[in-house]
Amino acid sequence: MTAAGASASSGAAIAAAVAAQRAWVERLFDRLAAGSPGEPGITRDTYGTGEDFGHRLLVEHGKDRGLAVSHDIAANTYVTLPGLDPAARRILMGSHLDSVPHGGNFDGAAGVIAGLVVIETLRALGVRPRCDVTTMGVRAEESVWFQVSYIGSRSALGTLPDGALEARRIDDGRVLAASIDASGGDSGRIRLRERHLDPATIRAFLEVHIEQAPSLVESGLPVAVCTGVPGNFRYPDARIVGRHDHVGTPRRFRRDAAMAGAEFAMLLDRIWQEEEAAGSPMAVTLGRFHTDPAVHGLTTVPGSFAFSLDVRAYEPAVLERVEARMLAAIAEIETRRRVAFKLGTRASAAVGPVDPTIVAGLEASAARQGIPTMPLGSPASHDSAAFAAAGVPVAMLFVRNEHGSHNPQEAMEIDDFLAACTILADWVARDVA
Amino acid sequence: MTAAGASASSGAAIAAAVAAQRAWVERLFDRLAAGSPGEPGITRDTYGTGEDFGHRLLVEHGKDRGLAVSHDIAANTYVTLPGLDPAARRILMGSHLDSVPHGGNFDGAAGVIAGLVVIETLRALGVRPRCDVTTMGVRAEESVWFQVSYIGSRSALGTLPDGALEARRIDDGRVLAASIDASGGDSGRIRLRERHLDPATIRAFLEVHIEQAPSLVESGLPVAVCTGVPGNFRYPDARIVGRHDHVGTPRRFRRDAAMAGAEFAMLLDRIWQEEEAAGSPMAVTLGRFHTDPAVHGLTTVPGSFAFSLDVRAYEPAVLERVEARMLAAIAEIETRRRVAFKLGTRASAAVGPVDPTIVAGLEASAARQGIPTMPLGSPASHDSAAFAAAGVPVAMLFVRNEHGSHNPQEAMEIDDFLAACTILADWVARDVA
Repeated sequence: MTAAGASASSGAAIAAAVAAQRAWVERLFDRLAAGSPGEPGITRDTYGTGEDFGHRLLVEHGKDRGLAVSHDIAANTYVTLPGLDPAARRILMGSHLDSVPHGGNFDGAAGVIAGLVVIETLRALGVRPRCDVTTMGVRAEESVWFQVSYIGSRSALGTLPDGALEARRIDDGRVLAASIDASGGDSGRIRLRERHLDPATIRAFLEVHIEQAPSLVESGLPVAVCTGVPGNFRYPDARIVGRHDHVGTPRRFRRDAAMAGAEFAMLLDRIWQEEEAAGSPMAVTLGRFHTDPAVHGLTTVPGSFAFSLDVRAYEPAVLERVEARMLAAIAEIETRRRVAFKLGTRASAAVGPVDPTIVAGLEASAARQGIPTMPLGSPASHDSAAFAAAGVPVAMLFVRNEHGSHNPQEAMEIDDFLAACTILADWVARDVA
Repeated sequence: MTAAGASASSGAAIAAAVAAQRAWVERLFDRLAAGSPGEPGITRDTYGTGEDFGHRLLVEHGKDRGLAVSHDIAANTYVTLPGLDPAARRILMGSHLDSVPHGGNFDGAAGVIAGLVVIETLRALGVRPRCDVTTMGVRAEESVWFQVSYIGSRSALGTLPDGALEARRIDDGRVLAASIDASGGDSGRIRLRERHLDPATIRAFLEVHIEQAPSLVESGLPVAVCTGVPGNFRYPDARIVGRHDHVGTPRRFRRDAAMAGAEFAMLLDRIWQEEEAAGSPMAVTLGRFHTDPAVHGLTTVPGSFAFSLDVRAYEPAVLERVEARMLAAIAEIETRRRVAFKLGTRASAAVGPVDPTIVAGLEASAARQGIPTMPLGSPASHDSAAFAAAGVPVAMLFVRNEHGSHNPQEAMEIDDFLAACTILADWVARDVA
């Protein structure tokens, strides 16, 4: 790098270089939204039309800017500003390009575009990085589609678990392996655990993401520095089997699956309150929670009930404790209400720790840039957790976002987004100097 | 009537005359099942193909036997053995001919065929009754279709409430008034509250029905004498509105409609247990109890929840007390969980008392016939309650039935059915002598 480059990397110059990119950033977000409609909101289906469009747009942007563009066996996309030393450990930035059905435009995509902003900032400042600086468009993060977490990032890291490639899309039944191949990947090589990304070659995985809860809105701050990504255990497709009975059936004869479901929910709700009162943040979501639409009705005692369960926490011990209490309580409910719980497939994700040195560096960059931040445990799961599990140092920045995410009302201000980009660019520019 | 007739009405002769009818009774049940399939089980949809078939079969049977057949403005069917005195208060027997979707063959129909058995028994014994003895095939008892109770019986009695004729069938959206007309009724005259059945002209309404709970199976008895029909209040189409949020949303920000639904269910369950512990039998059924299939998913906090509620009891005071507690608790849940309950339409049915003199007479007939019975509060609602509300003396006999009702496994033994017919024939033969 040149002396001019070093001088250009002053905090003020970085902030000015980021701010100057606002127009193309807004245009790129708009083009992405226009190409992935899902009335209401945005639908970029995993290994489907919507996600494929996002990756094509990323490729087009990278080529237009003269950057190196490549893909891997899971059809993840990489846009790279080559470094002076190709053997030096690389900086990876990015996030996912898929969305939930009828979600918003920023969940995932903001992290990909933030990486592009950092690369353009380095170029605007005349910085020639010592290592490759790459933005990764990650595939298949939204587990709602295939009920499997971190498909794209874990495939690249060679850590996708057995059986995942056989998962079927919840809406159309397509098999994951075939879907990956249709989008340009190579599921056969994923199955062999071929590793496209060697953790030892990655200096850091840095993910910007909208906050999926209103903590920043509540605090009036634009950006948060992540203190950890929660692990979870999940039962995506659980059922309770009782007996359908006439509405007049006396209590002592009933085997009411819906009442058993309600008792189960209230039990988890109570455990949740107790854990949080004891200082262990966690969350319980029964996203699907329903009687059987084929047979339910006003005058029938429900004999079958279905639910999905996601329990998340920041400490492995909390997850273990909650699951053990839950299983013990299920046995008790089964006996007393004469029903059977069929929990079905269990999935889990490890707690994802962040790298304390990088976190401290990001906080220092924020302070230098005069951008107020707060520490925040990630409410949601993120690809960063898959990288952390593989041994890559990770860090995340959350951007203030109104109305939550996974819904069409999701809203992020470009000012807040550019504040996160400024912090990230400040850290990267200094790290790669 | 003749001396021969009087002598033929000895208990043994009545029992023998009923038993002799087994073959045609079994054939009629079989023909009814064959004409109203609904794989799995039986579907005789209210004012639809299945119910219409049942009424055609009843008409055919009546005409074949040379009985008087007529209909009313609600398309109810009447098969009558004329009495010596057309002005004498008539005996009405019967029940409904519709079924729930995928129900069983006996729920309702058993009471109609029981009436036919009684009429044939009187004829076999040579009894000429002093009053008309009529079997009524009642329309539209199963409220699952139009979410309205006792449509056929209340239309005949001129007590169908305002607005009921505008109700829509839950499956195909057809309006009740048009459906009645299509089946041969005259909804315009129902709307005018024209009364086809004057309660003052009815000596008794006598309804045989399968038991819709396993109390008789538990007791090892074939028949029960009803001690009362429960009243109810219902909210057929209630909703809870919260907010859809990302699975990672912390507890303090959530407005989880499914958790609110679960808490509501457990509250009703607790009230139910307390009432029964205090000696007030009742029942709570949340037949539909579900997140929104259009938007629910593993990673979305449910922002909307739907349920149907049926609460039944044998004392008006119990119903009032439970509903008041329920409404107070809803207000508390709404505040604490930041959701809104939209209870929607409320329906109710009055508690239906039975006539103590007729009940005593039926018990005496059972004793005379050597058929063991037990007293039993009706678990379910029945047309008898509509007749009782109109001032008609009513009584009911329940027939033992395995596997509950409103499902394809419903099962009644013909022996048990004929035992109930014998008790009823014994009472009627003596009453009309």
